[in-house]
Amino acid sequence: MNGHLAIVGVGLIGGSFALALKAAGFEGEIVGAGRREEPLRKALQLGVIDRWCADPAAAAEGAGLVLLAVPMLAMPAVLQRIAPALPDAAVVTDAGSVKGSFVSAAAAALTHPERVVPGHPIAGTEHSGVEAAFATLYRGRRVILTPTEHTGAGPLALVRELWERTGAQVEVLDVREHDRLLAATSHLPHVLAFGLVDSLARQSEQERIFRYAAGGFRDFTRIASGDPVMWRDICITNREAVLEALRRFGADLERLTAMIDAGDTDAILAVFDNAKHARDAHVADLT
Amino acid sequence: MNGHLAIVGVGLIGGSFALALKAAGFEGEIVGAGRREEPLRKALQLGVIDRWCADPAAAAEGAGLVLLAVPMLAMPAVLQRIAPALPDAAVVTDAGSVKGSFVSAAAAALTHPERVVPGHPIAGTEHSGVEAAFATLYRGRRVILTPTEHTGAGPLALVRELWERTGAQVEVLDVREHDRLLAATSHLPHVLAFGLVDSLARQSEQERIFRYAAGGFRDFTRIASGDPVMWRDICITNREAVLEALRRFGADLERLTAMIDAGDTDAILAVFDNAKHARDAHVADLT
Repeated sequence: MNGHLAIVGVGLIGGSFALALKAAGFEGEIVGAGRREEPLRKALQLGVIDRWCADPAAAAEGAGLVLLAVPMLAMPAVLQRIAPALPDAAVVTDAGSVKGSFVSAAAAALTHPERVVPGHPIAGTEHSGVEAAFATLYRGRRVILTPTEHTGAGPLALVRELWERTGAQVEVLDVREHDRLLAATSHLPHVLAFGLVDSLARQSEQERIFRYAAGGFRDFTRIASGDPVMWRDICITNREAVLEALRRFGADLERLTAMIDAGDTDAILAVFDNAKHARDAHVADLT
Repeated sequence: MNGHLAIVGVGLIGGSFALALKAAGFEGEIVGAGRREEPLRKALQLGVIDRWCADPAAAAEGAGLVLLAVPMLAMPAVLQRIAPALPDAAVVTDAGSVKGSFVSAAAAALTHPERVVPGHPIAGTEHSGVEAAFATLYRGRRVILTPTEHTGAGPLALVRELWERTGAQVEVLDVREHDRLLAATSHLPHVLAFGLVDSLARQSEQERIFRYAAGGFRDFTRIASGDPVMWRDICITNREAVLEALRRFGADLERLTAMIDAGDTDAILAVFDNAKHARDAHVADLT
């Protein structure tokens, strides 16, 4: 890698990437950029980055690799902004949760599609901001890279190697498949969790409702403490796949509601049993 | 309390009640009963109970207090079964998640309504069975008692005192209010979690779907590892309130879906923001 590592958006995701690389002995310079100065000062103070620029274009100047870790709807403008400043050899990657829209935005803004490596670390917590970043966030987690037909082998190898240094397990997926799969297990659950808490919070007796909630509800709604802008942007930029997941789940939920309405004990038990077995088999041990 | 404590259903809930009382110095005899012998043998072996009977009626003979901790649809038959064996002075309470149906079943089976104290500990884990029981399950948790107009002060005080010995915080609620509030924060989320995992598990690419799920999905679906029979019974016995909660959430989810479909960024952000604030304020610190 010829030049420094620029990270645009030094929050939980971008900050943890920097900390993990430093913990793994990465010796290159790490330059942060972002919309607001205060988190960048904080990131410098915490030793997450070595230097910062308010302007992403300034951070991109001389960079060997640029990682974009900003909300999805901010990607196009950041890509447009860094494009003129990017060295010819610089590789551009991202950590966004929707790959189709990043691919489109990068294609529109950048002139070297072979050096664009779309990526998505399947990791995070319900906390956000650089103060929430930690060096082991990616250890044992999957990072999905979705190279396009234009992505070069060298840039792909570079991005893979850096993620592997953070302790992540890197896999390659097709862009559309990524967006469809993640709509099902990540974007849809977030819509349901945000939607449920909002729905309950708007009821007149919300204080009493939450008063008698317990640990199950706390876990079920943990993802509703996520960053509203980040998740709003995901819903917008992965709209088709999210709507398809909502439609499919909505139809299944209507069937389940009809079973409850009809008092069909066997049918309800079959659904709950199937869910429990699948969850215990495939989900319980996820980290 | 004149006589032993009988617990019908020595699983996570009934077993933890026994262990918590013993840990708090309760010196009365604890007699277990249940549908299957093997868990009762296990409970005896683990020191959860002092003695067991296969027949709930035998356990109720000579009891000062009977706690029913069986799935909701099993309540009526157990109540009918113990009724003839109950000493005149015995108090009957339960740990079921639906109070209206327990009140009806008790009214139909028992001849001393003043000694019926409906109760519901707001505690549990996704595990079930006596092996999952532990003495501190109720520490700091709420236990809701829903006395009817017939419940006597003495029986209410006895049940309250025993729960307080387990470390729980006892509150009194109206039966219908309990069932409505718990439908919103417990029964509805369980239906959604079971329904979502079942829906995803029935898709042809289920292996790939679950493969790329992460910690957020694991937490969101934790309650789908709960006991299918217990939750099926709750949906059936609290049907009206569960259906009302499903209808209300379904309408709100349709509005949210329409916002996503329309790409209405401001409206989506308002919903997600409201949810995050409510969750951080009222739910994040629940234990």
